[in-house]
Amino acid sequence: MSITVVGTVAFDSIQTPFGKAEHCLGGSATYFSVAASFFSDVNLVAVIGDDFTNEDASVFKNRNINLDGLQRIAGEKTFYWSGEYGFDLNVARTRETQLNVFAGFKPELNEKQRTADVIFLANAEPKLQMDVFEQCPGSKLVALDTMNLWIATARESLTRILGKVDLVIINEAEVRQYTEEANLVKGARQILALGPRTLIVKRGEYGVLMITREAIFAAPAYPLETVFDPTGAGDTFAGGFLGYLASRREASDREMRRAIIFGSVLASFTVEKFSLDRLREISLREIQERYQDFRTLTHFDDYEV
Amino acid sequence: MSITVVGTVAFDSIQTPFGKAEHCLGGSATYFSVAASFFSDVNLVAVIGDDFTNEDASVFKNRNINLDGLQRIAGEKTFYWSGEYGFDLNVARTRETQLNVFAGFKPELNEKQRTADVIFLANAEPKLQMDVFEQCPGSKLVALDTMNLWIATARESLTRILGKVDLVIINEAEVRQYTEEANLVKGARQILALGPRTLIVKRGEYGVLMITREAIFAAPAYPLETVFDPTGAGDTFAGGFLGYLASRREASDREMRRAIIFGSVLASFTVEKFSLDRLREISLREIQERYQDFRTLTHFDDYEV
Repeated sequence: MSITVVGTVAFDSIQTPFGKAEHCLGGSATYFSVAASFFSDVNLVAVIGDDFTNEDASVFKNRNINLDGLQRIAGEKTFYWSGEYGFDLNVARTRETQLNVFAGFKPELNEKQRTADVIFLANAEPKLQMDVFEQCPGSKLVALDTMNLWIATARESLTRILGKVDLVIINEAEVRQYTEEANLVKGARQILALGPRTLIVKRGEYGVLMITREAIFAAPAYPLETVFDPTGAGDTFAGGFLGYLASRREASDREMRRAIIFGSVLASFTVEKFSLDRLREISLREIQERYQDFRTLTHFDDYEV
Repeated sequence: MSITVVGTVAFDSIQTPFGKAEHCLGGSATYFSVAASFFSDVNLVAVIGDDFTNEDASVFKNRNINLDGLQRIAGEKTFYWSGEYGFDLNVARTRETQLNVFAGFKPELNEKQRTADVIFLANAEPKLQMDVFEQCPGSKLVALDTMNLWIATARESLTRILGKVDLVIINEAEVRQYTEEANLVKGARQILALGPRTLIVKRGEYGVLMITREAIFAAPAYPLETVFDPTGAGDTFAGGFLGYLASRREASDREMRRAIIFGSVLASFTVEKFSLDRLREISLREIQERYQDFRTLTHFDDYEV
């Protein structure tokens, strides 16, 4: 099974209370595709500039990541984001965003990319997401991420694409912002009413809620003693989640729950070091071991009367 | 098995975005004892004034709650708290606290109260908690709650009592405040190093973490569409948790996890209405049904390769 991600490959400069990293590898599609490639073949669709070196691209090597869709624009620079976190690592403060090559990004998917089983529309302007969506009428599952900027500045086009996709991955604060509803479950139901079958609400260090019309599933985040840099945690989660799901025969409630745990496992590795430094060194075996740790973390027995 | 709680029986005036309740029944020992009485015999040790009527006391009737320790002071008024919540129901803002009868509260436990299997020292000045602790040398398990006020104003005596008790129930923000450590797991380990075997970290709508030297257990809060009034949720949790635990033969990891779910179940009922209005109308059967809902909420299967 295969999965296509359309998003950013980027350079980040990040400051946290525990250190800083200048101009390191980042981007939604980068984190997503490395995480997803542990489970499925990934088609990466993104754009880079002259400044993106072979050394930078080595993160994709020896993984199931097809780079046919990684377009290089001569004479321009790669997307750049600079941000910082205080002791509350749940909230990033953006210092600077340089769209660079991403400003003119108009992805045209090839046959292989269009017909992947799963499509992930990483955070981008909703019109770009709609353009990609319309190129992929045959996919089994389309998932979308978004951000506060588009809720504030592109509400109408965001609402249109929310009505088209199967699955929405969104932050808790964004659910409240979009729906203007303080109660998270009520807000989630408002978004489901637009069309998606499934809403995955990311809650940072508190984990994830999956809300469908039939059920709610709550997964905690892995309680780490070292959280170094939360950048990319959400996209890593999405990659682990959708990568695992694309590898299964059906997107049943049972498989969705497993997928959420695999996504949470991958994200828990990402935050242990800056950039993709931890993600690129882990093995499938370590991922499977931490899946078992999540079982121990959350398991309780039925009671006896 | 039996449990003794030393805390407040109080009147509260509460404003939330969803309404307000004036001079309604509240207090840590009130919520705690009603919740705990579903599972164990409870000895209530608290103080009230002339203004506490038989109608008010009816909340304790027909439950396994012994009121020998409910002392009435003639000519004085019952403890009174007034507070409000914004849309973020995790944070209460105190408008007014009148200690009234509680200012001179010097509990002297009788034989039955002293020799209960479990003692709960509800939030109070640490010196009062120590005084009660020293009256109960034979109890199997002593648990303590505290608050930001004592961390700021009575740090030394708080540290002394933290070093004596077996189990600490504390808010996430209070762990960070007391330890001056941003990472919650590291902060928890600092408190465990003082002596307690178990730390229960309350995270409001995000649920609970139990941290011991050997294991961590994460339980979500029940995702409710109607959260009316969070007042008393923490003490209700403590009551359900310790009440269940006191009813079991051993405080094993397995039973502690079950106890946390029962505590979370009880707390999820409390917040559905003002004051103890919801708590006093539920049955053991409803509690057991919601325990099963927590299983559905959190369960995921092992993966298949």
